[in-house]
Amino acid sequence: MSTIADVAQRAGVSKATASRALSGGGYVSEAARNRVQAAARDLHYVAHSSATTLATGRSLSVGVIMPALDRWFFSELLAGIQEGLLDAGQDLVLYGIGEGTAARARLFSEVLPRRRLDGIIAVGIQPSAHELERLVQVATPLVSVGAFSEGTDAVSIDDEAAARIATEHLIDLGHRDVAFLGGRDDAATHAYGDARRLRGYRAAMDAAGLASLTRHAPGEATMPGGYEAGVRMLGDRTRRPTAFVAVCDEAAIGGIIAARRLGLSVPAELSVVGIDDHLHSGMFSLTTVRQQPRQQGLAAVELLRRRMDAGDAGGAQHTLASELVVRSSTAAPRV
Amino acid sequence: MSTIADVAQRAGVSKATASRALSGGGYVSEAARNRVQAAARDLHYVAHSSATTLATGRSLSVGVIMPALDRWFFSELLAGIQEGLLDAGQDLVLYGIGEGTAARARLFSEVLPRRRLDGIIAVGIQPSAHELERLVQVATPLVSVGAFSEGTDAVSIDDEAAARIATEHLIDLGHRDVAFLGGRDDAATHAYGDARRLRGYRAAMDAAGLASLTRHAPGEATMPGGYEAGVRMLGDRTRRPTAFVAVCDEAAIGGIIAARRLGLSVPAELSVVGIDDHLHSGMFSLTTVRQQPRQQGLAAVELLRRRMDAGDAGGAQHTLASELVVRSSTAAPRV
Repeated sequence: MSTIADVAQRAGVSKATASRALSGGGYVSEAARNRVQAAARDLHYVAHSSATTLATGRSLSVGVIMPALDRWFFSELLAGIQEGLLDAGQDLVLYGIGEGTAARARLFSEVLPRRRLDGIIAVGIQPSAHELERLVQVATPLVSVGAFSEGTDAVSIDDEAAARIATEHLIDLGHRDVAFLGGRDDAATHAYGDARRLRGYRAAMDAAGLASLTRHAPGEATMPGGYEAGVRMLGDRTRRPTAFVAVCDEAAIGGIIAARRLGLSVPAELSVVGIDDHLHSGMFSLTTVRQQPRQQGLAAVELLRRRMDAGDAGGAQHTLASELVVRSSTAAPRV
Repeated sequence: MSTIADVAQRAGVSKATASRALSGGGYVSEAARNRVQAAARDLHYVAHSSATTLATGRSLSVGVIMPALDRWFFSELLAGIQEGLLDAGQDLVLYGIGEGTAARARLFSEVLPRRRLDGIIAVGIQPSAHELERLVQVATPLVSVGAFSEGTDAVSIDDEAAARIATEHLIDLGHRDVAFLGGRDDAATHAYGDARRLRGYRAAMDAAGLASLTRHAPGEATMPGGYEAGVRMLGDRTRRPTAFVAVCDEAAIGGIIAARRLGLSVPAELSVVGIDDHLHSGMFSLTTVRQQPRQQGLAAVELLRRRMDAGDAGGAQHTLASELVVRSSTAAPRV
C-alpha cells in the first residue's frame, strides 16, 4: 500500500504539502495540488483519517451519546444521524450510556477527553453541570436532541404542544375523564420530555375546565411500562377513565394490550391516543401525534455542520412540528 | 492544554520517546517511561487517539456494520458490543447499511478504506466476494455475528437447533398441523438465519413423520410482517394450522395479534412459539426459544480481542446455546 511519502516523492513536493493538498487544509498552489492528486490516483493512495486528523485538526468523526439503543425513538434517530453523516463522509462514533452508570462516569472523565471529535450530538441526556463543562471542552459544536439546550444548539419537537393536541382531540370527541398514562414527572427523566408532555396534557385539561379530573398513572415509557400502568389504572372499574393520552406510542400500545386483557373494547369503552407514530402504531390502529425522529437526526447533523462552518457559539433551536394522525383507537364516549 | 512536546520537554526525552512511553508501543527504558508518566500526570496531559494511532498503528476504534438499527436483536447486540468495547477503552464506529443501498456500496468502496480500524464486527450481512475482499484488506481481525463465516471468526446461535426445539415442543404437545410463520427462504436473507431456522423446522417435522403437513407463510421478520403473514395464513378457516413456529418473537407477536383480530384464542385454538425471548415476549405470554444478543455482542468483542493479541488468521466459531422458555401461548390442541 502506498504512503503519503510515495505520493510526495512522485509529485516532487514535501510530505507536508502532499498532506495539505489531499486533505484540503492549508495553502497549496494549484499546480502542486494537481500534481499531488495525479500522483495519489496513479498510486491508488488512500488517506487514513488518523493522518488527516493531525494535518487538518479534523477527525471526520462525530460522537453520538445516547441513553438507550433499544427504543424506537432512539434507533430511528440514530438511523437519521447515520444517513446525514454518511452523506458528509463523517464517521459516527457511538456512546451508549445509561443514567447514573459507571459507563457514563467513564465516558465524561476518560473516554471523551482522549478522543478528538469534530462535534457531539447528545440525545435525551440531562448532563450535570460538570458533564456539560466536559462536553464543551471536548467538542464544540455540540447539538442536543430532545433534552437540554442551555447555550447549545437543540433539535426537538414541541413536547408540550404534542400532548395538548392529543388531549384536545379526546376532549373534542366529548371525553371528560381523560387520564395520562406512563412517563415520570420527576427531574431525573425530565430530559426525555415526559414532564413537558404531562404539562401539555394538564394545560389542555385546565383550559377545558377539567382540572379536577386530571390524573397520571406513572410508568416507564415502554410497552411493558404502559402495560403495567394500564393494568393498575384500568383494573378498578369504579374509577376507570373513558380515555387516556399516553406519554408515547409504546406506552399506548402496552395500555391497549392491558385493556384487552381486562376485556375492555377500544375504542367503544376506552379511547387511546399516543405520541410518536411508531412503526407499530398502524397495526394497533392507534390514533397518535406524529413525530419524525429520522428527520430530527438529519436536522441535528445539519445544525452541527452549520456550526462547524460558522465557528460561532451555539444556541439555535430547531423545533419540528407535530400533527395528529387519526386512526380507530379513539371515538366519542358511550352515553 | 498541554501537548506531547510539553511532556517530552519536562521529562527530558524526545517527543517520539514520550509518545512510545505513553502509548505502550515500542521500546522505552523503564526510567524514561517513569519520567514521562510523571510529567504527563503533572501536566494533566491527555493523549489524543489520532496521535496514538500514528504512533502505535492502533486506532482504538472498532467498526460495527449493521443492516438495521430498529430491531430488537440488533439494538441488544449493539448494546453488548458497546459494553465490551467500553471496558477495553475502544470506540465503536457505527456503520448502519441496508441491503443493496448506495450507502452500502460507498461503505465498502470509500468509507472503510479511508479509515484505520483495529477490527470490524460485521452483523448479519452477507458480503459479496468483492466486499469480503475489501473487508479483509481494511481490517483484520474481522468477526461476523449471525452470518457469513468463511475463514473469519463468527458468533451465532445454532439457528437450526433453535427452530427444531420450538417445533418439537409443539409436536410433543400433540400438534400435527404445525406451520412456520415469517422469514424468507431465498439467498438474499440467508444471512439472518431465516433459512437455517426453516430447515430446523422441516427437520423436526420430517423426523416426526409430518413432512406432508409442512408449510411456510413467508414474511418480514418483524411484528407487522408477522401480522400480515398471520392474517393470510389464519384467514382461511378451512386450512388453519393448530400451531405455528415463528421465525422470531416479533413475527410471533404479530401473528398473535392477527389471531386476536380473527377472534382466535391463544393457546386454546392456536399455539404459538417464537425464537428470541424478546423484551416484549413476557407481555404476550409467549413461549419461545431464548437467544441472548447482548451475550453475543460481548462474545464478538472477546473474539476480536483474542485475535488482535494473537495476530493469526481467523476461523473460530463461537456458538451460543438456546433454551426453551415455556409461557402460556402453547397448549395441547383441542380434540
